[in-house]
Amino acid sequence: MKEITSAQNTTIKEAKKLLKNKYRQQTGLYMIEGEHLVEEAINEGQRLEKLFITTDFMIEKQLDGLFAQAKEIFEVSDTVMKTLSSLPTPQGIIAILKQTSQALTYPLVAPLLLLDNVQDPGNVGTMIRTADAAGYAGVVLGKGCADFYSNKVQRALQGSHFHLPVVQEDLSNFIPDLIASGVEVYATALDKQAKSYRDLNPSTSFAIVMGNEGQGVSQDIIELCTQTIYIPMPGRAESLNVAVAAGILMFAYSF
Amino acid sequence: MKEITSAQNTTIKEAKKLLKNKYRQQTGLYMIEGEHLVEEAINEGQRLEKLFITTDFMIEKQLDGLFAQAKEIFEVSDTVMKTLSSLPTPQGIIAILKQTSQALTYPLVAPLLLLDNVQDPGNVGTMIRTADAAGYAGVVLGKGCADFYSNKVQRALQGSHFHLPVVQEDLSNFIPDLIASGVEVYATALDKQAKSYRDLNPSTSFAIVMGNEGQGVSQDIIELCTQTIYIPMPGRAESLNVAVAAGILMFAYSF
Repeated sequence: MKEITSAQNTTIKEAKKLLKNKYRQQTGLYMIEGEHLVEEAINEGQRLEKLFITTDFMIEKQLDGLFAQAKEIFEVSDTVMKTLSSLPTPQGIIAILKQTSQALTYPLVAPLLLLDNVQDPGNVGTMIRTADAAGYAGVVLGKGCADFYSNKVQRALQGSHFHLPVVQEDLSNFIPDLIASGVEVYATALDKQAKSYRDLNPSTSFAIVMGNEGQGVSQDIIELCTQTIYIPMPGRAESLNVAVAAGILMFAYSF
Repeated sequence: MKEITSAQNTTIKEAKKLLKNKYRQQTGLYMIEGEHLVEEAINEGQRLEKLFITTDFMIEKQLDGLFAQAKEIFEVSDTVMKTLSSLPTPQGIIAILKQTSQALTYPLVAPLLLLDNVQDPGNVGTMIRTADAAGYAGVVLGKGCADFYSNKVQRALQGSHFHLPVVQEDLSNFIPDLIASGVEVYATALDKQAKSYRDLNPSTSFAIVMGNEGQGVSQDIIELCTQTIYIPMPGRAESLNVAVAAGILMFAYSF
């Protein structure tokens, strides 16, 4: 274990760059923060490239398991932790991991969730977590979605990407391929030309497409899908939060 | 219309205080920001105590309707708007309203949503918006919930509190009263001793209780309720985001 007390240390400066998308892409690394997430990574057999822990955190917690799975461990001062952290109150532990993704497996044993241009990191993370809870086979992030490896998405995810494949694809190619392989693809639509989700009897193999917070699923994507569906709202709100809508749909169908 | 170009102006300093809960309570006022929310307030017949608009906003938009319903209108500089705003990119329009709340009406014509100690403002706001979409009769905020009149709750709400009553009550008194009046109250529980929401055949008159993000509904509240319910999760995530769970439940039952 090495000790770092200066925020100017090269290792810290390199790690801090991972808060930026550009550098995450260059290095193929990303950062997770907090005891729960790091524990989840370890339980799922993820190798920690680097582990940063404050002295206080080290004293308070049992860390044997962490040590075994970390290539390099750094004991850092509170000030150093603060410069690395993206939280108002840093949690005392940060790990750097390689970006790895399981591949989707076919034929699908459960439905897929497809996201088209969902921009809010909290929404993207929450929907992946909900897909994980619902037992979905995977999540596909299309163009315009919030960067999956950003700290905000990772926080909302709560480690669900260790449980199910999350892949990035161009939906305009991916959806026709899915349909060609016998999967029905249902796009959520804001117009009421669509079918109520309550009246839909989904195919044994299907995918649901959720869209942008303001505009919904883009028209060119909708045109590729098998069917458009909507959630009838007896009340007066104009729309639902996209992550809430995704939850309602994913839990509406047993499979 | 008055013009304000200094952030030190007394009206601005007074308005800015409304970003704090303490001052909102003292004055009985609160602030809403953005064209959509202000428009929604006006459409719902809310009187604007004060209206602050930037010159740019005023030039770009049709504002006749706003003027008619505002007691006092101030044209402010971009700098002044920035000191008032709680957004990274201010939207050019802020209104101050009186805190008014419709009362719940009995007998209930639709279910109620009860929130126990839900701390995240985004979750509180999103759940009220979902209750509005689902046609619920109202939302009751119990102890420990995020301050309803905070800017963050108001942003997630998107004006739904103009559509349905949102009241604050001590749930430990409110729930027994509800039950005494013939309403069944279902508390969400994390343990699987509870009944699956899919197996629940709700009473014609019912309420759902959602709880704290980490701890769920508190034990003393659970004990007051008619029945505990849970959402079976075939997948691997440990839990659902509370606003997603509330959406699944509220849309599961027709009424």
